[in-house]
Amino acid sequence: MNRQEQQLMADLIRSRRWAALATHSADGPDASWVAYASEADFGGFLLHLSTLAAHTRNLLASARAALAISATEQDGQDPQTLARVSIQGEVTVLTRDSAAYQAAAQCYLHRLPDAAERFAFGDFLLLRLVPVRVRFIGGFARAYTLDDVALRAAARNTLSAPVD
Amino acid sequence: MNRQEQQLMADLIRSRRWAALATHSADGPDASWVAYASEADFGGFLLHLSTLAAHTRNLLASARAALAISATEQDGQDPQTLARVSIQGEVTVLTRDSAAYQAAAQCYLHRLPDAAERFAFGDFLLLRLVPVRVRFIGGFARAYTLDDVALRAAARNTLSAPVD
Repeated sequence: MNRQEQQLMADLIRSRRWAALATHSADGPDASWVAYASEADFGGFLLHLSTLAAHTRNLLASARAALAISATEQDGQDPQTLARVSIQGEVTVLTRDSAAYQAAAQCYLHRLPDAAERFAFGDFLLLRLVPVRVRFIGGFARAYTLDDVALRAAARNTLSAPVD
Repeated sequence: MNRQEQQLMADLIRSRRWAALATHSADGPDASWVAYASEADFGGFLLHLSTLAAHTRNLLASARAALAISATEQDGQDPQTLARVSIQGEVTVLTRDSAAYQAAAQCYLHRLPDAAERFAFGDFLLLRLVPVRVRFIGGFARAYTLDDVALRAAARNTLSAPVD
């Protein structure tokens, strides 16, 4: 995976805020949608979820999960050519009022400011998905499998200058 | 779920061609991306997948799966307000040269004409996901759970006039 492919993957992860989430349910794999914020080094992906939602209950029962992020579908374009990435890993719940929670909340709200009021709701949890295995498909015949070390290397090699 | 919500869900399903797919893998739930075509009555969702892809191997080992379809993410909009649908079900492989395969291929290619050349490839399978449980979220506080019967009713109540 060369520098250009790393950039394509990192830009995709950093530019989107909405991913599909695969969880294990009693009725087999489930797929839902979640807002996410990636940590700067891609060491973790932050989710802020209601315990009333089925995917949250699934995660509390079985911590393994995967996020799928894709470039936007366009009319008239073969969707198979879209860049997309799958991030398989394990989720932990961040303890409210811990230092890790505060840092994660700040990272999340920087990216998703509209979520601020939901941080006051008692039924919401802040979760962190730690990547184990990543699959990036840049288009036809451009597929790569990465571990967490290679994913963080891609984050490091593509860090953009701070914008604020 | 009123007629307006049925229309919103049906339009979402019919207007997109690209969905996240949740499958069961040895490393827990996996999430990937697939092109899909919905049958007119929402009785089945058609996928044309390479046996070289991990999600296809997952499906051949464990037929349960889910598709997740979402409206397009927009800058400046809280993604939680996006309409999205999750379709949990079971996948079967259509036998090549059967009548069901021919009908499904025609339905798929009508929606995804760029896939035509891949139908000549020996490693591709045509699969049909039959919905069991559907979750539609039209936006904040507008969530509905449907079974396959209610899903087909939504298809029937919203059928648009043939366009060709």
